[in-house]
Amino acid sequence: MRSYKEMTKEELAALKEELNKAYEDAKGKGLNLNMARGKPAPTQLNMSMGILDSFNSHMDPVTPSGVDTRNYGELVGIPEAQKLMADMMGAPYENVFVFGNASLPIMYDTVSRSYTFGVLGSTPWCKLPEVKFLCPVPGYDRHFKITELFGIKMINIPMNADGPDMELVKKYVESDETVKGIWCVPKYSNPTGLTYSDDVVRAFAALNPAAKDFRIYWDNAYAVHDLYDDDKDELLDIIKECVAAGKPDMIFEFCSTSKISFSGAGIAAMAASKANLDWVKSTMSVQTIGYDKMNQYRHVLYFKDINGIKSHMRKHADIMRPKFETVLKCFDEELKDLSDVVSYTRPKGGYFISFNAMPGTAKEIVSKCKEAGVTLTGAGATYPYGKDPEDSNIRIAPSFPTVDEMEAAAKIFVLCVKLVTVERLLQ
Amino acid sequence: MRSYKEMTKEELAALKEELNKAYEDAKGKGLNLNMARGKPAPTQLNMSMGILDSFNSHMDPVTPSGVDTRNYGELVGIPEAQKLMADMMGAPYENVFVFGNASLPIMYDTVSRSYTFGVLGSTPWCKLPEVKFLCPVPGYDRHFKITELFGIKMINIPMNADGPDMELVKKYVESDETVKGIWCVPKYSNPTGLTYSDDVVRAFAALNPAAKDFRIYWDNAYAVHDLYDDDKDELLDIIKECVAAGKPDMIFEFCSTSKISFSGAGIAAMAASKANLDWVKSTMSVQTIGYDKMNQYRHVLYFKDINGIKSHMRKHADIMRPKFETVLKCFDEELKDLSDVVSYTRPKGGYFISFNAMPGTAKEIVSKCKEAGVTLTGAGATYPYGKDPEDSNIRIAPSFPTVDEMEAAAKIFVLCVKLVTVERLLQ
Repeated sequence: MRSYKEMTKEELAALKEELNKAYEDAKGKGLNLNMARGKPAPTQLNMSMGILDSFNSHMDPVTPSGVDTRNYGELVGIPEAQKLMADMMGAPYENVFVFGNASLPIMYDTVSRSYTFGVLGSTPWCKLPEVKFLCPVPGYDRHFKITELFGIKMINIPMNADGPDMELVKKYVESDETVKGIWCVPKYSNPTGLTYSDDVVRAFAALNPAAKDFRIYWDNAYAVHDLYDDDKDELLDIIKECVAAGKPDMIFEFCSTSKISFSGAGIAAMAASKANLDWVKSTMSVQTIGYDKMNQYRHVLYFKDINGIKSHMRKHADIMRPKFETVLKCFDEELKDLSDVVSYTRPKGGYFISFNAMPGTAKEIVSKCKEAGVTLTGAGATYPYGKDPEDSNIRIAPSFPTVDEMEAAAKIFVLCVKLVTVERLLQ
Repeated sequence: MRSYKEMTKEELAALKEELNKAYEDAKGKGLNLNMARGKPAPTQLNMSMGILDSFNSHMDPVTPSGVDTRNYGELVGIPEAQKLMADMMGAPYENVFVFGNASLPIMYDTVSRSYTFGVLGSTPWCKLPEVKFLCPVPGYDRHFKITELFGIKMINIPMNADGPDMELVKKYVESDETVKGIWCVPKYSNPTGLTYSDDVVRAFAALNPAAKDFRIYWDNAYAVHDLYDDDKDELLDIIKECVAAGKPDMIFEFCSTSKISFSGAGIAAMAASKANLDWVKSTMSVQTIGYDKMNQYRHVLYFKDINGIKSHMRKHADIMRPKFETVLKCFDEELKDLSDVVSYTRPKGGYFISFNAMPGTAKEIVSKCKEAGVTLTGAGATYPYGKDPEDSNIRIAPSFPTVDEMEAAAKIFVLCVKLVTVERLLQ
C-alpha cells in the first residue's frame, strides 16, 4: 500500500467507505475501555498489598531513629523515609523532606507559598502585575492546571527528542524577570515518555535567570519506572549540576511512590537546597504539625531501601511492558501508510505514549474513539489552557486496561486515526 | 492558713524562704517532665494499634461503595468515611468531605484559599487593605499562627464560662466588614476545657455579618473526648442552627481523629454547606487528586461506626481521667490559700486545663517550672501574637505524662505558682 497522501480522491473515498464500515462494526461491539489517565492497573496494586502487612500491631511503632510514628512531631518526615526517598532521587539525605500521600499537593503548595509569601524574601507573586511559567509541550495537564489557577501566564516551549528547546528556555529565563518557573518531567516525561539528555540537564544548570526567584520545578515522577532492565534511560542528577554551577537554590525536585506503591496512599518528597527547605519549613510549620509518619514507616519497612524499590519496579515492568509493546506493535503494523502523517514516541519507561495525529484532527479522533467505547485523555489536555495550537497531540495511557483490552483499544484508536485522516484529506 | 493577700510582709517573707527551700530541693531532683503540648500518651496510642491490622493484604481493598481505595479518585473521600466523620460531627453525610491526616492543614488551606481566591466569589483577601479575625482568648496557638502568617489582624475576645463574649462578637461581626472569621473550639475548648452553651451557639447562628464572606471556623476537635460517661458536656449542632437561621454558608466545621486514633496518622474532615463545599472543591481539585483513601478505609474497618468510636473513647477516658483528677486534686489542696488570686478550669473533657495566675506572673512561673525540669506551654501562647496582655494564662496539658509524672509535675507547678506569687506580693 501507499501513503494516504499519495492516494487519489477516488482511492481515499473507497478507503473511507471501508473504514467507516469497520468503525460501525466496532461501535456495535459496545466496548467500554479507558485509556484516559495514568492509573495503575489492579494487578500492579495487588503487587503492593504486602505493604499493609509490613506495619502491624505487633511491630514496634518507634523507628530505629527513635521517632514514635504514631504521635505528633517530625515535621519533615522520619529520617528513614528521608533516606529512602533521597536515594530514589539520587539526592543527599539532608536535602530531602518527606510529605504526605502524593507529590501534586507539594507542587501546588510550593506555587501557593511563592504566590502568597514570595520565594526566599522576594516579592510575593500576588503583588506582581505578571508572573509567567514556561511549559514544555506536550506536558502534564495537572501541572498546567496549578499555574492556570494562580493566574500565572503559561508559555509553550516545544519538546525535542532530548528535552525542551533549551535555546528558547534560555532566552525567556535570562531576559524576562517575570518568568518565575518551568514545569519539567525530566525522565520518561508525561506524555512523551522521553528523557532529558545530559546536555539538556547541563543547559538547565547553566541558566542565569533574570529573576532571582526563578525555580525549575523538576517533577521526577518516573525516576524508577523503567520498562527494560537492559535498556534504561539515565537522567543526570540536576541537583548536583546546579550545585556545581553555583546555583543550588534554582531547583525544586519532587517525587512520590504514587506509581510504585499505591496511588493516593503513597509517600511523597521534595529535594532542594537548605535555603529553599528552610523557606518551605517557615510556612509549612504553620500549615501542619506533620505528615503521616506511619505511612512513611510502612513504606520503609516494606521496601527497606532503594534496592527493594528497584526489585519491586522490575515486577511492575513485567506488567507494563506487554501493554506498551501491544500498543506500539499495533501502531507499527496499522499506521505504516500514515508514517508521513502521524508520529508517536517509543518510550523505555514511564506511563505514557505520545501520539501526534495530522494537525487539526486530534479532537475528532478522541471524539470518534469515545463514540466507539474508548475513552482517551481529552485532546488539548497536554497543553496549557487545554489548547493544543495544532490540535494534533493525543496522550495514550496504557497502564490501566489489561493487555487484551489494550489491544482492542489500540485497534479502535488506529481505525479512528485512519478514518479521521482520510476524511480530512478528502476535504 | 490565710489568703496570701491578707499576710503581713513578715509572714510573706518567711513563707518565701520556706518555698525557696522547697524549690531548691525540687530542682535537685533533676526532673524532666513535659506538659507543653496536647500529645497523646503512648498508652493511648497503644490502644489504637489494632487499626493497623484492620486493613491487611487479605482484605478486599474495594469498599462496599465500590471504590478501589488503592487507586486515584474520590476527591472528597470514600463514602464510608464521610458517613463516619459526619456522625462524629452530627452533620449530614452529604455535607462532609474527608481529607488527609489532620484538620490543621484543612483550616490552613481554607484560609489560604480565601486569601488567594476569595470566598464564593468575594474579593480575595490578598487584594484587601485589611482583614481581621476574632480570637476568643485564651485559645489555640496554632489557629492564631495561621492568621498571623497571612497578615490577618487578630482581635481578642474574652471567653466566659459559657463561651466567647457574644455581645462583643456581635458588635464586631455586624459592624465591621473587614472581620472575615472567628476561631472557635466549641467543645472542651483549647485551653479552657469549657463548652459553648446553647445560647452562645444560637447567638452565633443569629449573627448578621457585615461581610458576606464572614465564616465561623468551628474546630470541633474534642467532639467525643468526654472524661465522664455520666457527666458530659453537650454541644448544640451549629450547622443545624445556621440552616434554621437561614445562614447555611456562615459555618465551616472541622474535626479529625488525631486524638482518637493516631496523631498525624488519623483522618480529618470538614462539614459545610453545599455552596461552601463546591467552592472548596473548585481549587482542591487542582491541589490534589485525592487524599489517602486506604487510611480512611482503615479507620472505617476498625471503628465501623460512631458507636465504635464512642466505645473506643470510653477507654481513652479511663486513661485521661486520672491525669486530670490528679492535677485538679493537687491544685485544690495546694492552692486554697490562693483562691482569691489564681483560678483554673475544671473540664469534663478535652485535653487541657486552663490556669490563670496572678496577673504579671505567668511568664515567671513557666520559667521557674522549666528550671525545675517541668516544661509547660510558653506563657502567652494561648493569645494572638503570643501576647497575653495580663501575663496570666497558662495552659496545662496533662495527656502525655503518666499519672505519677503528672502528680510530680503538678507539685512543682503549684510550688512555682506560690513562690512567684509571694515574690510579687512582696514587691
